[in-house]
Amino acid sequence: MQSTKQTSPPPLLRALERLPADRVPVWFMRQAGRSLPEYRAIRGSESILEVLKDPELSAKITLQPVERYGVDAAILYSDIVAPYVSMPLELDIVPGVGPVAGAPLRGPEDLGRLRPLDPDRDLAAMAETVDICSCALEVPLIGFAGGPFTVASYLVEGRPSRDYLITKELMFTDERSWHSIMASLVDVALAVVGVQVAHGAAVVQIFDSWIGSLAPRHFNRFVRTHLEQLASGISDLGVPSIYFGVGTAGLLPEIATTGFAAVGLDWRSDLGAAAERYGDALGLQGNLDPATLFASEPFLLDEVAATLRESAPAAGYVFNLGHGVLPATDPGKLADVVAFVHEKGLALRMEGSR
Amino acid sequence: MQSTKQTSPPPLLRALERLPADRVPVWFMRQAGRSLPEYRAIRGSESILEVLKDPELSAKITLQPVERYGVDAAILYSDIVAPYVSMPLELDIVPGVGPVAGAPLRGPEDLGRLRPLDPDRDLAAMAETVDICSCALEVPLIGFAGGPFTVASYLVEGRPSRDYLITKELMFTDERSWHSIMASLVDVALAVVGVQVAHGAAVVQIFDSWIGSLAPRHFNRFVRTHLEQLASGISDLGVPSIYFGVGTAGLLPEIATTGFAAVGLDWRSDLGAAAERYGDALGLQGNLDPATLFASEPFLLDEVAATLRESAPAAGYVFNLGHGVLPATDPGKLADVVAFVHEKGLALRMEGSR
Repeated sequence: MQSTKQTSPPPLLRALERLPADRVPVWFMRQAGRSLPEYRAIRGSESILEVLKDPELSAKITLQPVERYGVDAAILYSDIVAPYVSMPLELDIVPGVGPVAGAPLRGPEDLGRLRPLDPDRDLAAMAETVDICSCALEVPLIGFAGGPFTVASYLVEGRPSRDYLITKELMFTDERSWHSIMASLVDVALAVVGVQVAHGAAVVQIFDSWIGSLAPRHFNRFVRTHLEQLASGISDLGVPSIYFGVGTAGLLPEIATTGFAAVGLDWRSDLGAAAERYGDALGLQGNLDPATLFASEPFLLDEVAATLRESAPAAGYVFNLGHGVLPATDPGKLADVVAFVHEKGLALRMEGSR
Repeated sequence: MQSTKQTSPPPLLRALERLPADRVPVWFMRQAGRSLPEYRAIRGSESILEVLKDPELSAKITLQPVERYGVDAAILYSDIVAPYVSMPLELDIVPGVGPVAGAPLRGPEDLGRLRPLDPDRDLAAMAETVDICSCALEVPLIGFAGGPFTVASYLVEGRPSRDYLITKELMFTDERSWHSIMASLVDVALAVVGVQVAHGAAVVQIFDSWIGSLAPRHFNRFVRTHLEQLASGISDLGVPSIYFGVGTAGLLPEIATTGFAAVGLDWRSDLGAAAERYGDALGLQGNLDPATLFASEPFLLDEVAATLRESAPAAGYVFNLGHGVLPATDPGKLADVVAFVHEKGLALRMEGSR
């Protein structure tokens, strides 16, 4: 645990409300996991789906990066497809591959296999994990769920894809089934984050990693209303929401109007331009290229500084990477980034606004 | 061959000079290749590197889509790494994998292996292929070379990559070697397109497919000057240039000022916004999602129409997909797209500008 008590409310929540905080909050996507030796020490070799049945272990993994780095948030250790494991989809998460569905959703005849969740049965272990984390943490816990397009891409393709061709074919040729699937996935996401928030999560991030594979007009036609539902549902839970996808530079004008409190950018988006354009109305999070962690320390810290300066026009800003921590990342470098953001973040954001 | 003689100059060249033409020009990235039965009939199973040693066969493959579709350009059948095959890189193009370099470039000690090309030895077959195509064609032949970042990514990683981590590590940690590699790759690209133009190519496209993996500030620091050199070198050859990369929505403001005559957009970029912002000074090409070819005919043609309308603010516009034709694409659909663009293109662009 962190040794110092947070002032209240914590910097992450202040930033997401676009209010000044006494430091720039920082956390890392995939901060828990393979880059940490203490994770590898307790993780074992079974599927993540097995680990998630063990709340004590899942909570330990969730808390490790907070203990090591002093980041401003924990993020629940889980997976976006985990809530679907009890449905007849033959779902597995294969190491080195990703989510695999042996019985994918391909048309109207498959829709019945997307059942509503029964929180008491399907989310009991998750609820217990969140309970343990919330008790132990002095910083906010971020809950999360998968964005409906990204989850759909796994459940429709049956495995990770390069071009999402089966998903798009369904979307383009059977709009009715597509919208039905998306609506079901939003229901599941809201059930998941509902339990997380009820048990103590203070923020919700939606990981819609592959949304950036869509043209802006397809986003508007096939995804927008579902994201609006999701954002509004999270808002009803009384917690701020962050929406993240990879390669969303072309979609940002669309995403900005779906109703999420904040948007996470990857490193290919121009943070400065986004802050200028959306920073009054939207919290921004990001967007350091995870590959810069493999550069020298001076190069890395120059990059962190540049990112902080670029963020200046955003009223609410959370430092993060532009995608998940890469497995081979040196945890020492991440610790240095946290220290640097905490020490110099506010000054560099001031500098950027001059 | 096409049965009708083109008016002179052809629509593609008019569009790239941002001048009105009597129809909207259209061609498809990867229009030659696996989606065509006549290609599969003559292709055999050897590596593309073997096929490229046979100018008659390479030319036949280049001409096939012009004969079938009546597109407004042929694009030379070749590969961006083919010019490197005689260098000590142990280069191969492995079916289902892509370019593989058994002896990749990893640091200063490897720089000597990037030799200047000897056009008479290294590019003789390519020159002969271009000769045959130029004689046979009534539409312009597009020559091409790889963009230096993308070629570097193959030669440094040694194989196709997801995160370009080895490439970026070299770029971030040994800027001198990086710039030296990039300068050599630009020299090779200019030698390649120089031969193509000398033998009759009327346009040059630079395929820098993976440039979209870079943050805007890394593009400016590590790539910009090399692209400026390349654009200026092509301009000296007296032909228009098109620069294409995937996922460049965030880089477009940077790419727009490198000196290429036109930029190809993928489908994730907002063509309408780009046309509005850059369409006076820059030709634009693109950007239909190749996955829409798997939709129904009415859906597909609506998409083509929407793309044409969005292009309206661009003075010079070339219809194309936002990435290469997918191998499973029905050639009949592509033929319908060509007919539609030729028949309705000008009217829809007029409609879009109202």
